[in-house]
Parts: sequence; structure tokens; C-alpha cells
Amino acid sequence: MSGKLFLVGMGPGSLQHMTYAARKAIEQSQIVIGYRAYINLLEDDPAGPSLLEGKEVIRKEITEESERARLALEKAGEGNIVSLISGGDVGIYGMAGLVYEILAEQVWRGDHGVRSGYQVPDIEVLPGITAAQAAASLLGAPLMQDFACISLSDLLTPWEQIAARLQAAAQADFVLCLYNPRSRQRTWQIQEAQRILLAHRSPETPVGLVTHAYRRGQQVTVTTLGEMTQHPIDMSTIILIGNRTTFILEGRLITRRGNAGSR
Amino acid sequence: MSGKLFLVGMGPGSLQHMTYAARKAIEQSQIVIGYRAYINLLEDDPAGPSLLEGKEVIRKEITEESERARLALEKAGEGNIVSLISGGDVGIYGMAGLVYEILAEQVWRGDHGVRSGYQVPDIEVLPGITAAQAAASLLGAPLMQDFACISLSDLLTPWEQIAARLQAAAQADFVLCLYNPRSRQRTWQIQEAQRILLAHRSPETPVGLVTHAYRRGQQVTVTTLGEMTQHPIDMSTIILIGNRTTFILEGRLITRRGNAGSR
Repeated sequence: MSGKLFLVGMGPGSLQHMTYAARKAIEQSQIVIGYRAYINLLEDDPAGPSLLEGKEVIRKEITEESERARLALEKAGEGNIVSLISGGDVGIYGMAGLVYEILAEQVWRGDHGVRSGYQVPDIEVLPGITAAQAAASLLGAPLMQDFACISLSDLLTPWEQIAARLQAAAQADFVLCLYNPRSRQRTWQIQEAQRILLAHRSPETPVGLVTHAYRRGQQVTVTTLGEMTQHPIDMSTIILIGNRTTFILEGRLITRRGNAGSR
Repeated sequence: MSGKLFLVGMGPGSLQHMTYAARKAIEQSQIVIGYRAYINLLEDDPAGPSLLEGKEVIRKEITEESERARLALEKAGEGNIVSLISGGDVGIYGMAGLVYEILAEQVWRGDHGVRSGYQVPDIEVLPGITAAQAAASLLGAPLMQDFACISLSDLLTPWEQIAARLQAAAQADFVLCLYNPRSRQRTWQIQEAQRILLAHRSPETPVGLVTHAYRRGQQVTVTTLGEMTQHPIDMSTIILIGNRTTFILEGRLITRRGNAGSR
């Protein structure tokens, strides 16, 4: 019997901003697999422990992304109902792509459905509130016009490609969401991004920094493109950079709905 | 006493993909205001009618966006708890920006807080699953790399600006989400967008079309950039266009997590 694999986006980090469909998927599952910190967030939630009660819960470290994906495919392929959970939206810089990449390799190698007792599981993706949305909602209404999401992590993407995207987005006046702006190892990328953006956009451009959105230690800072790197930024920070129509009103970042006035 | 205004993103159109926080906001409200079709979707939901029970429900037509925003500010400013609901994410091409724009005008004119009995209400934004996420989850995992959302509606933004954004995003190999691709009045924009994109991307580029995501009449089509305009596209359609690393596996659209292999 083939199993079921739910790829679940849990949102910014509590049950509050999870969807009903995502919660129902976890409720239905026999096995729940996830990065340790996210499983912990679920358990810390007042309604979380009962959600996980009676299930096999598998916690893995942040570096074990491929192991989580492989294990989820394997357990579901053996006939189990499995939820693989991911912070934010599982389909936006999340685990969904990795699961499908591994599945694709197995299909291409011809070794899916051949091992005895293993069948490709039915896969269902449950979207969740991604970090850019969580940050935007805390800042006001910065994403009212065309926007681009760019990850500054050059682990899997060469920096030249990231730089080209920053430049293109700045030039065409997109609102920008920067994911993974800085980590302990990656420190120069945010400075370099700022330099690229300042070539096309005023240093007065409104910028919002949100760290730990909707979690303990949440911090919301409204600043400018010229000054943003003087504030604390780490791997839990999302940076939203306004376009030419974005303005600040009583500490909120607001982008006009249209561009007609700034022609 | 100043009231409270919740700006609520209800997701693709049922309670299933709404967040707990969004639902709780509506539950707490005395007055619920929204576009008629979305209020109807809520009522059609098995759990929806009880959610709205005992509340003042104000339905407005699709053209009455400003009226909805003004009314919500007014009712909340008079001391009520009000939810203004919006499909998808209220902060992404939704009602949040309009509410803040109107508030800004009032502040600049100096006529907020001066009318007797009126105070600027406390405003809280509740994010929701936006159409691009709903579509992506039904297609597989197309949004695993940097992506840009572009609305093809030139009602508030001049077409030259939209065309420049399409070109910049295509050139820098963003995955693309096209909102408002076609309406009864606007028919040539999607053809023109296709022409611009084909100048930078192969006609074989995988494309997903999703109409009425998670609603009655849902349609999911996997096609290519060269052929996408031969399929039905209307104002309920979201178009996701892959980048150079996107591939199709058993009817799913998958974007590789990184670009390293395609350098």
C-alpha cells in the first residue's frame, strides 16, 4: 500500500499563523519529521503538545536537510502517513523542492517502485505564511506592488547570480525581500547588497528589518537603505526594502498601490 | 474609546487555508467588511456561517475598494472591532495598502482625531496564503529559488513600468509569478508579456497555470512558455514561469534549490 507524504509549511513559528489544512495534515499523520528547532516551537505552543501526542516524532539537525527529505520519502513509501514540516512556506526556500529533487533522482535511476514494499507515495504540499509575509504584516503594507524575493545565501547559488538579481530588481523598482541576509559565516553579502542597491535607489529609501517574526524576541525596526547595516542583522532577520513609492507613516512602511503618480 | 481594525488575509478562498490568527480576528470582530464574493465563499464553507453569526456583515462590490477601506477605518474609529477581509494575503496586492494610504491622507489633512468621537484605530495585519503560494503548492515546488511577483494590470501602474519589470526579471533568471494576467477588458498584456519573456527564456521553459486554486472549478495546467497563451487564462488564473533550472517530473513543476549546476 502506498503511503502519503504531506509537505507542511508551518508559517513563522507558532500554531497561530499555521493554516487549518496544515494542522489537519499533521493531525492525520503517524510520523512527523522536522528540524529540531521547529518541532520545539510546536511543542512550546500551548496547543502544540496535544497535536504531536501519540505520533512518532523525528527531530533532525539543521544540517540534515537531505536526511530529513530521504527519510520522509522512505517512511511514506513504506505505507505510512508522514508530515515533513518546514518553517514558513515549505515551497519557498523550503523542503518541498529537495524532496522532489531526490524523488526525481530515484525515478531517473529507476529505483523507485522496485524495492519490495516501496512505492512512490502520494505527495501533497500545504503552503504556509513565508517570512516575507510575516515581516510585511508587522511593518504595515510594504508589498503592495510588484516585489522580488532574493536569498543572499551563496551556498547553492553563485554570488554573481545573486548580484545580478539584486541589480535587476533594484533597477526595475521592485520592492525587495531579502532572505538569509547574514549568518555567522556569511558577513559581507549584506554590505555588498546594500552597495548594489544604492547605485539605483536613494539612501533615504524606507527599509524594514524584522527578526524572529511572531516569536519570542521579535524585533521590528524601520530604517533606511543607507543606514540598514548599522542595525543588528542575523539569519533570523528578513529585510524589506521599499521602492520609489514607499513611505513611512507613524512607524509603518507603506507602498502605494500604483505608480501612476511617480511617472 | 478607540477601536480595532483587523486587516485579514483569508487565503485562496476557504477556511481551510486561512490561518488560526485570521480566524480568531474575525471571531473577535463585531463588524466584518469584505468584497461580496469573498464573504460568500466564507458562508459557503461548512464552518463559515457560524463564524459570521451574530456579526454585522457588510458586503461590497469589487469596484468599491475605497468605500470598503474608508468604511472600515470609520467604523473602527468609532470604537468598534472590525475585520476587513481580503482574498489571499491582505498585504500583497490586497486591501492593506489602500487602508494605510487613506489613513495617511487623513493624517496629512489633519482630520483624524479631530471629529468628535473619532480616533485613529489600532490596526493589525493578519497575513494569508497568497495566490502564488496556492498555485505553487498545487504545481509541485516551483518557488525554490529567487522569484518575482508581477501584476499585469496596468490600471494603476503604467505598462512601460510593468514591461521593464518583466524584462529585468526574465534577464536575471527569476522564477516569475504573474497576477491579474487577463480580464475581459485587458487581453493583450499576457501576449506582450510572453513576447518579452521569450526574448530571454527558451519556449520550452516550464509554466504552470492555476485557475480557482482550492476552490470549486480548480484547474491546474502544466505547459511551456511558448504554448501558455493557447490555454484558457482569466482573472482567476495565476501563472508561474520557471527559471533555467525548473523541470517537469510526472506533471509537477520543480525548480532546483540552487544554480550551481547551471553556471
